[in-house]
Amino acid sequence: MNSVLNYLAAARRSEESELENLARTCDLVLAASELVHHLQQERGSSNLFLASDGRRFAELRAQRVAASDQAMLLLDAWLERRESQDGMSGGARFYTRVAIALQALAGLPEIRRGVAALTLTPAQASEQYSQLVAALLALVFEAADVAIDPAISRLLIALFHLMQGKESAGRERATGAAAFAAGRIGEAEVQAIEYLIEMQENSFRHFVAFCDELGAEWRALQSLLPLSSLERLRRKLLSGLGRPLDSALADEWYTCCSARMDELHRVENHLAGLLQGLCRQRIEQLQRDSADQQQRLSELRGSLPLPPQAAFAAGIGGPVAAAGDGIGPHLTQAVVDMLQSQSQRLQTLTDELATVRANLEERKLIERAKGILMATQGLDEAAAYRLLRQNAMNQNRRLADVAEALLGVAGLLPGQAGLER
Amino acid sequence: MNSVLNYLAAARRSEESELENLARTCDLVLAASELVHHLQQERGSSNLFLASDGRRFAELRAQRVAASDQAMLLLDAWLERRESQDGMSGGARFYTRVAIALQALAGLPEIRRGVAALTLTPAQASEQYSQLVAALLALVFEAADVAIDPAISRLLIALFHLMQGKESAGRERATGAAAFAAGRIGEAEVQAIEYLIEMQENSFRHFVAFCDELGAEWRALQSLLPLSSLERLRRKLLSGLGRPLDSALADEWYTCCSARMDELHRVENHLAGLLQGLCRQRIEQLQRDSADQQQRLSELRGSLPLPPQAAFAAGIGGPVAAAGDGIGPHLTQAVVDMLQSQSQRLQTLTDELATVRANLEERKLIERAKGILMATQGLDEAAAYRLLRQNAMNQNRRLADVAEALLGVAGLLPGQAGLER
Repeated sequence: MNSVLNYLAAARRSEESELENLARTCDLVLAASELVHHLQQERGSSNLFLASDGRRFAELRAQRVAASDQAMLLLDAWLERRESQDGMSGGARFYTRVAIALQALAGLPEIRRGVAALTLTPAQASEQYSQLVAALLALVFEAADVAIDPAISRLLIALFHLMQGKESAGRERATGAAAFAAGRIGEAEVQAIEYLIEMQENSFRHFVAFCDELGAEWRALQSLLPLSSLERLRRKLLSGLGRPLDSALADEWYTCCSARMDELHRVENHLAGLLQGLCRQRIEQLQRDSADQQQRLSELRGSLPLPPQAAFAAGIGGPVAAAGDGIGPHLTQAVVDMLQSQSQRLQTLTDELATVRANLEERKLIERAKGILMATQGLDEAAAYRLLRQNAMNQNRRLADVAEALLGVAGLLPGQAGLER
Repeated sequence: MNSVLNYLAAARRSEESELENLARTCDLVLAASELVHHLQQERGSSNLFLASDGRRFAELRAQRVAASDQAMLLLDAWLERRESQDGMSGGARFYTRVAIALQALAGLPEIRRGVAALTLTPAQASEQYSQLVAALLALVFEAADVAIDPAISRLLIALFHLMQGKESAGRERATGAAAFAAGRIGEAEVQAIEYLIEMQENSFRHFVAFCDELGAEWRALQSLLPLSSLERLRRKLLSGLGRPLDSALADEWYTCCSARMDELHRVENHLAGLLQGLCRQRIEQLQRDSADQQQRLSELRGSLPLPPQAAFAAGIGGPVAAAGDGIGPHLTQAVVDMLQSQSQRLQTLTDELATVRANLEERKLIERAKGILMATQGLDEAAAYRLLRQNAMNQNRRLADVAEALLGVAGLLPGQAGLER
């Protein structure tokens, strides 16, 4: 009987420590999301600075760089802590992803030197900043994938999609700004913008699906945002092939896109608050349950002897089935009840987690399939996505199914010998 | 750069500690499998003792009880250790499963009292022992499901199927022995034996599929086992409806089944050896890799400065893609290579694990579907399985698919309101 209680307690302890690890992982994710916002602003100001050949926006850029550095210092301080290096959920996979993101961030000074010396084009600078953001987004994705609590995982997935949508908005801003500034737009830019608009719609649809708590706020935001101006400017861009674009609209475009991104960041912060609240709430709930359980056990122990009795067994993947014929002493029955409810609760969590993670699995399939098409057919991301989507529509199949089918035959495709799936 | 290396090291440490936890989980599983073998022997001798109205086999039974107690003491001593209660893989789910198995085992003295006092029928005693064994088997299943290394998970799945097959053999032995002893067999017993034979075939097929290392040994065993005697006796049982059975064959049946179970236990022990070897090998490999990595880093550190350079980013679910244009210093490049290979290795492990676990998922679906049919239609296990299988054959679908379809509509079935899926 003592062993039973020891392992019941071990299960509680383990669950509590996993939740505390997950709360730390969430803290890191929120620090990363803050840094992403500042890097996006730094990227925007660097583009303006480069597009003006260094004649304007130097001060704005300096402010943005300082703000990014501030966010980076906070992240660094957090990462240097002992408990961060031993107590985050997700184990080796997550730590490796952190190391990869840090290695990417180590390249920031070099990018900044390139911007300051005007040796990078706006497109090159954009691309390099975007890769830093991608590494941080991959961190958020990984956190959602390794989270062991379905409700927290759900909010992390919502945050990932929100950040991803905002990043597509940022890349749309850069592409459009360059086109307006140049006074013309090419076929590739039109396709890139169409792709980024579609990505935003996808991302925000997923975000709302995974975060119904913010659904009302999100809809309110839609009416608040300068969406009509944005749509008008998008129309000018997308219908601008072969015609001159009005350069005077560059500022309006930039301001309008930036205002939208700031609004999105406010939603991010709101979501961050929900996430931290949920982590705290989960831990407190578990501690309360633990205390109640202890209390109940010691009450029963005080009033009753402890003969081990009432055998019962548990079927695989199923609830605990009471066996034996009579009702055992109160204590045994109480322990049986506790084991039964704990086992059912953990099974429910596991099932819910599987459902939540299915979204991430689909996303991985699509990302990998895009990568294969880019590698084997020399397509850019937008074209690879269009090809996949077209194929899915023609066959009346889901995008993820077509992606999975492609991955299944990836080894048969030319130029794929040395590539990882 | 320091942070990058810290997190690379944290990933290694985390992987190593997860493998050590998994090795402990495997130790527990092997102790449980040893105990199962002794409980099966105790169940067998208890049946003989009860069938003879306590006139024979008292000494044999006493020996078996002593052997079970010995195995239980070993298991208890292991479970009392501090590190067992804080350092097994699988967290709360696994610890809860351990507590459930221990609670089931706490009922053993009560069963023994019932046998000694002759207040249990052989069928009742069998059923109660079988529930203990089921709780221990569920522990092995859970260990396979939570194992984070695909190769180790594969061997645990093989062990589970081997143990499950051996348990079906044990239940077949009991059912057949009772029939021979009674000199007749009923419709329900014939169906139970047919079901148990089919379960054995399924289990052993899965076992061989998951443990090709033992494939040759397994095939050799087939010729060694007294299978022809077993098949002859099975034929007599299964064609015995409405005719008297030769009671004189009871001993031959029992001896023949027991010899087979002993052989199966030898295969179990062999598999246990493989499992422990694999755990050790995995941990040593990881430690060697870690040492090599440290060595390489300190060599490069000794010879080179550490400017952070060469940004690169990683796509979601994909390999690390080198960005930037030039080749950075050797150290940066070495770190990039390490991160890239580590990320790919962990992704490969994750993919392999998903493939291996699919087998367990199917098994869970089938077990749950059987449970639903038993609860809603008042069927026994054999009949529930036959109904599922018949349905699958009629529709030309896989058993797991039919099970999943049933679970999907479980809420619509009568009498299912209060039942967990």
